[in-house]
Formats: sequence, structure tokens, C-alpha cells
Amino acid sequence: MTINVGIIGFGTVGSGTARILIENRELIKDKTDITINLKKIADIDIERDRGISIPRSILTTNAEDILNDPDIHVVVELIGGIHPAKEFILEAIDRGKHVVTANKALLATEGAEIFRRADEKGVLVGFEAAVAGGIPIIKVIREALVGNRILSIYGIINGTSNYILTKMTDEGMDFKEALKKAQEHGYAEADPTFDIEGIDSAHKLTLLASLAFGIPLSYESIYVEGISEIASQDIEFAKELGYKIKLLAIAKRVDSEVELRVHPTMIPESYLISKVDGVLNAVYVVGDAVGETLYYGRGAGDMPTGSAVVSDIVDISTRIVGRCTPLSEYIGRQKEIRIRPVREIESMYYFRFSAIDRPGVLSKISGILGKHQISIASVIQKGRRVGEAVPLVLLTHKAKEADVQKALLEINQLDVVTGKTALIRVEGQED
Amino acid sequence: MTINVGIIGFGTVGSGTARILIENRELIKDKTDITINLKKIADIDIERDRGISIPRSILTTNAEDILNDPDIHVVVELIGGIHPAKEFILEAIDRGKHVVTANKALLATEGAEIFRRADEKGVLVGFEAAVAGGIPIIKVIREALVGNRILSIYGIINGTSNYILTKMTDEGMDFKEALKKAQEHGYAEADPTFDIEGIDSAHKLTLLASLAFGIPLSYESIYVEGISEIASQDIEFAKELGYKIKLLAIAKRVDSEVELRVHPTMIPESYLISKVDGVLNAVYVVGDAVGETLYYGRGAGDMPTGSAVVSDIVDISTRIVGRCTPLSEYIGRQKEIRIRPVREIESMYYFRFSAIDRPGVLSKISGILGKHQISIASVIQKGRRVGEAVPLVLLTHKAKEADVQKALLEINQLDVVTGKTALIRVEGQED
Repeated sequence: MTINVGIIGFGTVGSGTARILIENRELIKDKTDITINLKKIADIDIERDRGISIPRSILTTNAEDILNDPDIHVVVELIGGIHPAKEFILEAIDRGKHVVTANKALLATEGAEIFRRADEKGVLVGFEAAVAGGIPIIKVIREALVGNRILSIYGIINGTSNYILTKMTDEGMDFKEALKKAQEHGYAEADPTFDIEGIDSAHKLTLLASLAFGIPLSYESIYVEGISEIASQDIEFAKELGYKIKLLAIAKRVDSEVELRVHPTMIPESYLISKVDGVLNAVYVVGDAVGETLYYGRGAGDMPTGSAVVSDIVDISTRIVGRCTPLSEYIGRQKEIRIRPVREIESMYYFRFSAIDRPGVLSKISGILGKHQISIASVIQKGRRVGEAVPLVLLTHKAKEADVQKALLEINQLDVVTGKTALIRVEGQED
Repeated sequence: MTINVGIIGFGTVGSGTARILIENRELIKDKTDITINLKKIADIDIERDRGISIPRSILTTNAEDILNDPDIHVVVELIGGIHPAKEFILEAIDRGKHVVTANKALLATEGAEIFRRADEKGVLVGFEAAVAGGIPIIKVIREALVGNRILSIYGIINGTSNYILTKMTDEGMDFKEALKKAQEHGYAEADPTFDIEGIDSAHKLTLLASLAFGIPLSYESIYVEGISEIASQDIEFAKELGYKIKLLAIAKRVDSEVELRVHPTMIPESYLISKVDGVLNAVYVVGDAVGETLYYGRGAGDMPTGSAVVSDIVDISTRIVGRCTPLSEYIGRQKEIRIRPVREIESMYYFRFSAIDRPGVLSKISGILGKHQISIASVIQKGRRVGEAVPLVLLTHKAKEADVQKALLEINQLDVVTGKTALIRVEGQED
């Protein structure tokens, strides 16, 4: 089965989406038995090189070429803003096409009309990419936590603000410097108002709260306060008190009401969400059954947001084909992939030897390691008691497990090594 | 539409699942338009009080009463172990019933036969609850990241081991003490082998890897090493080197092969996953498009695991009814819920006043706060320059926003208060 897709808007997210649909087309087919065919892309600029190899023939400067194409099942709106995004979406819906969009501003403010029209026409509107980029928070709230009464949601869902607050916290910058830095890195736009004043977060919170609590889209009712008034000294005082300042989007059930608000919030440093730094996003959701959960990832960028768009396209495609697929569908399809035996892996290693404290021991051990291409990153040697066994701790650079096992065999036979050697594999970046 | 469900196994997870299906029945109907009817529960012990109000008539000691009931659409297997769980599941499949199970040991070792039989019969087998309890990691990998080539998975997916390692790390216990503590708290069984030797993690990794890479279920090929050999001094040395020791389940694509292994692993303290402590679980997944993501929550327990079981039941029900529902279905259904205005919220507060450093200022300010029922939790007063403005920082206990705004109005009119007062709301537990 083939599902035809048209993308309107070939900017950052459009390019990411196109890249995934093209480069992972066979993979997606393997996983789902559905071919997602990127049939057309419309943008006012079809000349700029996006670094993706696509046939020139699928590019058009006219969105109507997509909206009028009777073979296109799913229209993906990625131009952003209210107009003409809204008109394109409504036109797609009226022609019986399903819609996928990342447009939080549009859905938060005009979503009621869009969802009603889609309902009347019996088409689907997917918007996973509208909130928290690559984090599948819409699917989590709608489907994974369907059995739960959602009690609260706390989200770091604006990467720009989180980047600025992180720079202020970690590097002592003031707000203006940090904003400038964000703009230099392309994390903040020339006019950063939506991001730093909490408006973008409020758009996203509107969608999350409606899905979680079933309330109408209520953007106008959200209390919104941004981060532009946060002073460096408040960041310092917060630290002193054991807190971090984050721009949180909060939706909370209190008795039979809900609170919806976006504002800078002090959270204890010990909370996992307070450790979400830089442009990363995270959403903490508490359900009456599941308890505390947290979802973390990139909230923006071409590929992470594209990942969310593609998951909506596939979800909709699965419903279009109406297949009742086993939940285990992908298991066992890849019979060609070899599982690498542990002796062939590469890792960094921690060794703790029990070694007699005698001159030359370290050189003997490191000599054997060196012979087996294992190089040492750090050494800890403690509690000198000449002639007695003391722990000798080594951390290695990347090495092959087979080499490590051979080296250990030799080392354990040294008469200066007593007792069992502890080995723990180490993950992380090489220094 | 009504979907009838039968549960075999009324233990911990069975009770949690039953409680959710009964107590949140209307909520689930509101969200999905489907009534999930818990028609029968089978267990050898139907006398013990599980603290859930269920009609006696739905309890049976005979699983065949569920398997033979032609009206039951979905059979939920929650007895665990290989036999007779496998026979019950195969019998349910043969009678054309969909199956939901939390049985990782069974699926990891005998899943191939179960999935094949389900495939032949065209029924679904849901197993979200088999891995990481309430964390929807199966749905995330299968659906949310469907557009991604999964590059790696690192999971803390055994709460018992993580609890033991946390106790060893934070309280300096040795392995045996920490295990005893875990047993006292009911986090470890009398025979803890499966948990502490990595077998349970390997069962779960088998399922994750097959879903992520499409490889056949490969439990036998996983390298497994538990935590029982971890010495306190290794925990200490790891700390000194800037690492934490966690039992990780690792699935990693390397060139055209995959590595599958479970072993104690040192990870840099700066990594978010190293901060996942106690019985909590987390799974870190890297996809080629989405980049780094992390999913965190409770990996065991009646209600979290029940939450996962219910999400499978609802997913299967949605497919049974074959409805093409708008992705926005729940939005706007709850028109009765009031959105509480910000002036009515309760929060803790951080204030930074610019106050002239003069005797009696703190007492004036705290007097006004007290008059408005706002009590002070901490004070920071710094840099005494008599007669000049200095920052005066107060952290309050829980107070009402309206009271806070009134108090601030009064305080800001004091002639000793100069400049603007900073206000930041504070989340977290009250001291």
C-alpha cells in the first residue's frame, strides 16, 4: 500500500521531514508495510539547496498543486504563522485530505474551527510536531496514558528560553548577553518575543491541556509571564537556596478546576527536570495511575521535529489502510543483522586490581595492557602499605573486549596481583 | 461500543489493572467513546480483599471461564512465569481473542511462537507492560520513533538493582545490606536472582531490541552480568572519577551489527540517566532523526504497570472498533471544567526586595506579609550598607496569589522599599 504525501513549506522542518521520508523510506516500509511516497513539496523558494537529493519534478511554487492533487492523501503544513497556513489546512480538509501540522500558534488560537471542520469531514489532524519537537508528548498523553486521570503537567517546552536561563545559570551571563548568544547560535530569532515572553510555551500548553483534561482550547485563559525580567542576582539567590529557575508551562488539576500558567519557576535542584539544560525540552506528567513520568529530548530542529511529523504521517497512514496489524509486526523481520558477541565489542573499562604495593607493579600491569593495545586514561593508587595488597584502579581509553580479556588473564597471573580483578565497562565520551 | 475484557491473574498488576478499568471507566469512555467492560477475573485466590469494589460475580477460580467466554474480546494474562501462562495465551489466540500480557520472561523466551500464532489468527498481542512498567517505551519505539533508524538504547529497566545500587552509592551500604533493605521494602523477592543477576533486564532488552532493530527475539544471545559482584570500593572509586555505576541494558547498532548486553556500567555523573535513582526506571533512546531522547517513570507496581496494560487494552479496542477517530478527539469534551485564574492559585514564592538597609525593615515587610497570611520559610539578607538599598530575599511557605499581590502592593509603597520587587513562583515540596 502506498500513501501519497504533499508538504507545504520547505523550510527547516519541511527539509527534515523530506529527508526522513526519502532516506528512511525503505526502513519505514519494513516497519509498517506501508510505502510513504513524498509526492510534492511546495514552497515559494524551490531553488535553494537543502542538501537532500530529491527529484526536481516534485517541487512546486504553488500550494494548490498539492491541494488539487486527488492522489495526495496527507497534506503536511509546515509554513507556520496564521495566514495562509489556516486557509491551506481548511482547503485540504474540505477536499477530504488528512492534515499534519507543526503549527502550534495556529492550533492554539484557531484550532477549534480546524478540528471541527476535520471532524465533519472525517479526516485526521496530526500535531505531534507542534509540541516539544521530537518528544512524543501528544501520543503519550492521548494514548499511552489513556487510562490515567492526568493530575499535572510541567513542561520545559521552549528551547530558546531554556538556553538563555542555562547560560545565565552556568556562565553568569545576564539576560541580554545570553539572548545575544542564543541569537548568534540561531536558537533565538531576530524578534525573540514569542520565545522569551512565554507565548510559544503558552501555545503549546494550550494543546497539552486540552488533550490532558479534555477542556476546550484555552489560550486566552493562560497566565503568561516570560523570562526577560529575570535578573542575574535572582539566579544566584535561587542557587544559594538550592533551586534552579526554569520557564515552566504548568497545567494542574486542582479540585474540579485546572490551573494553566507559564512563568519562570524555581524548582529544587534535586528534581530531574531541573537538570534539563540548554535547548533541550522535557515534559513531566503525573497521572493518577502511572504516577510520575518524564519525557526528554530535542524540542526543535529539522530532524527531531521531522521525526514527529513522520510519526503522525505513519499513524494516519495506518488508519487509512485500516489494517489490524499485530503489535509485534517488526519483530524478526531483519534476519540478516548479526548480534555481535561481547568479545567483539569496544568499550572503555574500569579495572580494580588487588596488587602488592611494590615498585614496578604499575609498570608491569600497564606494560601488559599496552601490549594488547589498551591505553590508560586515569590511575588511582591509594593507601600505600609496602608489601601488602592495595587497590590499583585504572580507567582505560576505548579498547576491544577480547584484548581486555586476554590482558586480564596475563595480569591475573602476575604474582604481585592477589585476589580477583574487578572489571566494569564505562560509557560516555572519550576525553 | 463495548469491549469485554477478562483478566487471568489477580495479583499486584491484576489488581492495579482492575482498579483502573473500574475507577476510570467513565474517563476512558469520555476519551475514546469505548466502554471497556471488565467482565471476568480469574485467580486461584478470589477470597483475599484487594481493596477494590468489584462485584463478586465477576470472580472465578477457573481461567477457562474466560477463555471459553465467546463475548470476551481481550484476554489479559497477568500470572507471570512460563506455565500455564503460555498455554492460556495460546488458547486465547486460538479462540480468536486478542491478548495483553506483562510477561517479559515468557515473551523473551517463547515469544516467537506466540507472535507467529497470533499472526496466523489475525489477533493482537500487546505487551507494553512487559518493559519498564508505566513508561510507554514499546509505543515510543514502535510508533513515535517509527521514522527513525534506532541507533542505541540504554535502559535502567530493573528497579530492584537500581534501588540496591542507589543505596550503595548514597548511603555507603555494601551489596548484601542494600539487598536486605530492598527485600524489607518489598522491592526484591526472597529469591532475587532474576533481578540482581540481570536476567530480568535481559528479558526486557530482548523485546526492546527486536522492536527497535527488527531482529528475531534473541534472549540467548545477550551478554548478561549482574550487580552481585559490585564492591563498595568500586562505587567509591567511580564517584572519585566522576561516574556512577548503573545496571544498564544496552542495545547498540554498530556498523551492520547490533550489540546486546546487560552489565554494570559506569556512566558520567553529568548524564541525565545517571541521576535516575531508587526503584525508578528510565530508557535513553537515540534515533537517527530524533537524536537523544529519554523516558522516565515507575518500572513496577500495581498502578504504573496497570496503566500500561490499560493502554494496550484501549489500543486493541480502538482497532477492534475500527474507528477512524480524529487525533484531537478529547479536546473540548470537558466543558464543565473551570480554568482557575492565576489570582486564585496557591504557590510558594520567592521575593527579592530592594530595601534600604535600616533597622526594622525586615519586621515591617514580614509584618505586612503576615497580615496577609503569608509566612516566611527563609531569608537572605546580604551586603550591609547602612542607609543604602540592598537585596532582601524571602522564600515563603504556600500562600495565595491574591494575598501575595495585595501584600506586594502595600510593601512596594513603603518608603524603605526602592526599585521593583522580583517575584518568582516556587514549585516543590514544602519543608
